[in-house]
Amino acid sequence: MYGVILSNIESPADLRKLPVSDLKEVANELRRYIVDTLATHPGHLASSLGTVELTIALHYVFNTPDDKLIWDVGHQAYSHKILTGRRDQFPTIRTYGGISGFPKMDESPYDAFGTGHSSTSISAALGMAIASKLQGNLDRQHIAVIGDGSMTGGEAFEAINNAGVSKSNILVILNDNGISIDKSVGGLSSHLTRITASRSYNQFKEKMWQRTGGDHAKSKTKDFLSKTLFVTKTAMLKGANLFESLGFRYFGPIDGHDVDNLVKVLAQLKEIKGPRLLHIVTKKGKGLKMAEKNPVIYHAPGLYNAQTGNQINNAPSESQPPKYQDVFGHTIIELAEQNDRIVGITPAMPTGCSLNMMMAQMPDRCFDVGIAEQHAVTFAAGLAAQGMIPFCNIYSSFMQRAYDQIIHDVALQRLPVILCLDRAGLVGDDGPTHHGTFDLACLRPIPHLTICAPLDEHELRHMMFTAQQPNQGAFVIRYPRGRSIHADWRQPMQILPVGKGRCLQEGHDLAIVSIGHIGNNAISVAQELLSESRIQIGVYDMRFLKPLDTTLLDTIANRYRHIITLEDGVVKGGLGSAVEEYLLQRQSSSPLPSIHPMGIPDEFITHGSITHLQHQCGIDVEGIKQRCKQLLGL
Amino acid sequence: MYGVILSNIESPADLRKLPVSDLKEVANELRRYIVDTLATHPGHLASSLGTVELTIALHYVFNTPDDKLIWDVGHQAYSHKILTGRRDQFPTIRTYGGISGFPKMDESPYDAFGTGHSSTSISAALGMAIASKLQGNLDRQHIAVIGDGSMTGGEAFEAINNAGVSKSNILVILNDNGISIDKSVGGLSSHLTRITASRSYNQFKEKMWQRTGGDHAKSKTKDFLSKTLFVTKTAMLKGANLFESLGFRYFGPIDGHDVDNLVKVLAQLKEIKGPRLLHIVTKKGKGLKMAEKNPVIYHAPGLYNAQTGNQINNAPSESQPPKYQDVFGHTIIELAEQNDRIVGITPAMPTGCSLNMMMAQMPDRCFDVGIAEQHAVTFAAGLAAQGMIPFCNIYSSFMQRAYDQIIHDVALQRLPVILCLDRAGLVGDDGPTHHGTFDLACLRPIPHLTICAPLDEHELRHMMFTAQQPNQGAFVIRYPRGRSIHADWRQPMQILPVGKGRCLQEGHDLAIVSIGHIGNNAISVAQELLSESRIQIGVYDMRFLKPLDTTLLDTIANRYRHIITLEDGVVKGGLGSAVEEYLLQRQSSSPLPSIHPMGIPDEFITHGSITHLQHQCGIDVEGIKQRCKQLLGL
Repeated sequence: MYGVILSNIESPADLRKLPVSDLKEVANELRRYIVDTLATHPGHLASSLGTVELTIALHYVFNTPDDKLIWDVGHQAYSHKILTGRRDQFPTIRTYGGISGFPKMDESPYDAFGTGHSSTSISAALGMAIASKLQGNLDRQHIAVIGDGSMTGGEAFEAINNAGVSKSNILVILNDNGISIDKSVGGLSSHLTRITASRSYNQFKEKMWQRTGGDHAKSKTKDFLSKTLFVTKTAMLKGANLFESLGFRYFGPIDGHDVDNLVKVLAQLKEIKGPRLLHIVTKKGKGLKMAEKNPVIYHAPGLYNAQTGNQINNAPSESQPPKYQDVFGHTIIELAEQNDRIVGITPAMPTGCSLNMMMAQMPDRCFDVGIAEQHAVTFAAGLAAQGMIPFCNIYSSFMQRAYDQIIHDVALQRLPVILCLDRAGLVGDDGPTHHGTFDLACLRPIPHLTICAPLDEHELRHMMFTAQQPNQGAFVIRYPRGRSIHADWRQPMQILPVGKGRCLQEGHDLAIVSIGHIGNNAISVAQELLSESRIQIGVYDMRFLKPLDTTLLDTIANRYRHIITLEDGVVKGGLGSAVEEYLLQRQSSSPLPSIHPMGIPDEFITHGSITHLQHQCGIDVEGIKQRCKQLLGL
Repeated sequence: MYGVILSNIESPADLRKLPVSDLKEVANELRRYIVDTLATHPGHLASSLGTVELTIALHYVFNTPDDKLIWDVGHQAYSHKILTGRRDQFPTIRTYGGISGFPKMDESPYDAFGTGHSSTSISAALGMAIASKLQGNLDRQHIAVIGDGSMTGGEAFEAINNAGVSKSNILVILNDNGISIDKSVGGLSSHLTRITASRSYNQFKEKMWQRTGGDHAKSKTKDFLSKTLFVTKTAMLKGANLFESLGFRYFGPIDGHDVDNLVKVLAQLKEIKGPRLLHIVTKKGKGLKMAEKNPVIYHAPGLYNAQTGNQINNAPSESQPPKYQDVFGHTIIELAEQNDRIVGITPAMPTGCSLNMMMAQMPDRCFDVGIAEQHAVTFAAGLAAQGMIPFCNIYSSFMQRAYDQIIHDVALQRLPVILCLDRAGLVGDDGPTHHGTFDLACLRPIPHLTICAPLDEHELRHMMFTAQQPNQGAFVIRYPRGRSIHADWRQPMQILPVGKGRCLQEGHDLAIVSIGHIGNNAISVAQELLSESRIQIGVYDMRFLKPLDTTLLDTIANRYRHIITLEDGVVKGGLGSAVEEYLLQRQSSSPLPSIHPMGIPDEFITHGSITHLQHQCGIDVEGIKQRCKQLLGL
């Protein structure tokens, strides 16, 4: 299954026993193993192919796990997992019970820090470096590997600003491939391109190389001069780039696929103290032609042919329901064609949220602001303050980065920003760092926000249509990853009454009150209970978490003995709490029904298929049905 | 009350009618008015004194309010308020019913964007600039004035990265005074100092100045050459500093107190398109000697003598209870002396949170990371991952900036980071941007967090002592602004049983269940009801929001007919919800008591004294007493 050398590497200690001359072959075997495995076990392909040589060189040169190695974000870390004792488990990656798709502290001592969200690595590495210093360990190395995309995240800058003056033993490796998931954007990206393309630097490098005798020089001389080259260049560039400005010693750029040179350079950098940054240039998807050519598609390509790289056609048939993200992508164009105040914003996820469709069609009205959730939301608020209606699309779990901006810049000022939270609820394979399960609970306490979630794609369209009507104020629409339920999604849009829910089916004794796509589970439960046991339960779709439809809740409370609330989010503080809060306060002569909140329990949920995870949380059809039967004494 | 020129300035239009030669006198009058007013009406003095000339020049040159002017953060904007129609209301600043201490969109059309939290201005200005472009207005100017402290916030970097490539009409004015509230820290600060001190630049400037004829040149020639100087210098510095790296045209540094030159330079910059940054150097506290010398103290000095600047002694007498922040400040030293794993972290608030005491005593174990809440929390997590116990002190409302990091880096990894949230609950004069009222509700849904709040300073010490015990995991301690209740605060510390509340007083019929300092209001209510009406109510201090003491709640629910929950935080999702959630789910034969959550209603609360605001929310002693009487049918 894997090559002969790789089959003998159980840990980095084995790797370190090899002669440097073997490392190229290790890279080949590693790359082959990743390509072969992910062909049938989908994962993050292109990022991991780009860091094969770097990973080998790092573990070869540094004394992991005592030296601390942090991958920002974890997509890049598949080679790292394979070389650090998880080679055989690698095919289980991102499956229920298998290894995580991201570094995870309790999975391996080599995973120094968990990194599902971007731009955290330098902060964490600096913390560790300071800890080592305080503990009297002045030799330990602390290495953060960060992509040029992640480097645009504000937290990375905060950390660079802090680390630059800290005199700590921290080495930042800037893995510059010009791409995050989509193409990198912004001033930093241009800056890096300019550095790399800089004629004067390349000429200088060339000259030094010739002077050393080019390819034919003795290796000792070359080593010495290569070191000199580094030191000289550092002096030459002093203050000349962003990182030098902020107190880092800057080295590079060098080819991130030349494993021999990487080993040499890292060994040199190991001897230098203080904050250092090594800029390496890599190719996302390196070694698989299709992936090199289409790194956006091959970020996570799904199934493909391991030899050719061709994706295995799993395109939806005409009759398959669309993904929610595509309903968003098409619908915002439809709305923007009618309403010229509408603009679209994404923090580095144009493909993931399908805003790329509008970007192609209306480039002037779409903004990919980079990995920059805080900025995305305040930027949207600025647009709204000047009369525009921004749809700002952020994955639910990344929205957590902009929590303050939602409160301080949007809600407090009642600005008509429409936040579309994609990947809300359980997201499946990406696991606990990516589940979008806190949004309902953490946004509900914020005044002036309207918060809703669609049951299906028709509802998503209605909600988007409603949100951009005049004077709606700040609007949150959250919807899940994956497909909706109707193939005929492009139906005429309607204005929904804000803060009004609806009865999907009347029943007796027991009502399920839900919000969002998970309500489809309630519908299934009702159908099954009817056909299996001739029991008719009520099913209600609240549509809006805020304002809450208290009139509808009155009706339900007066009619049913039991109420189940159902949401694809944490039970603490979400819809269940909202319903309980209201029903406990209302003045009514009728007795209080029993209320049973169902949702995500108070624990972090692992990775695995959404079906598996819903089952684990008891909110799949089976789990809800059991609860209904129990309440009804069946 | 104010000088003759100022008395005739009702709006910037009046200012623009004056000859440039009058502007110095306007600055004098404005400065005098601010110093005189704040002497008896406490506010943010030093920042506002530093921007007097800049404010005059901006409103003189630009066509506000059509041109958009955003102050980051609002401390700097007092002159702006006075010149834009709020001169006479200025003495009401930060008082209930008076004008806000920060720019506020619904207070004036000149306040283009509300800015209570830092580092948002460039994002907002960019949004406005893009809106203007889309609306076909290519002449409108969009100006963000940002301090060097605020510039360290990650969001500012995200915005610079995005704006640098946008070709938008945005002018950033970097107000560099080397200080935020405390001294600015980090690589950026050093970088700015280096630029300003740069000999080559200063020599160049000097030479150009001489060549133009120095002070004696004809003003036309000087104008021309001054323009040339700018263009030349830009070319010279191209790529040589951080802002140029990111695609901005950089100008400066120039003296921010030379109003004539500011007017000239701004007029030139007005003619240049695209993203520009003007670096001005100012003195915080300018014009008041005491404030210039002690800008940290004079950031918000309280009462002082308008002539001498001497603070009016309001030092606490020995018998006065200490501020919570000082109890924190002293106690962390006491703990750190016994436990060498403890370190202290603050994002730019060493004086505000009193970590400055430990910084003086144990400089190696304290870290001011700059205005960088996201980094602060992940940095703490990195330290904790390597065996340290970091106390990370953040104001509650600024903690909102680190919400994702608390979830993703701390709680998910069960790292023993102790978050001390100062300024929790209503903060008074600073108003809605600063009230720390969302913390309990937004943190409660996060698994693995322990969340507590002290009733008084003894409890704060016990909680800090408990949090740093082995194996406690992530711990949140939130406490309010201002003074506690006991003068004899330095009592021996005890380990509290985690997740256990306590009965402060048993009673009949009605119990108040509270968390944190606001529980003192409950105690007063109980005392008053007893002495006034001989009614004995129960008073319970939950201490911990999470884990919740369900045993205690069982006891209370079995004993009382009515329960009031009381918290200094939003009612939606906080303690009240937690109590309701639990009592609705518990299996019990006894009837459910009526539950009445009291706290901050679902609206943003204005500024004013804490007493006023508690009254407005009904959670002052009077309001709670009324509620008790009503429930008891009195």
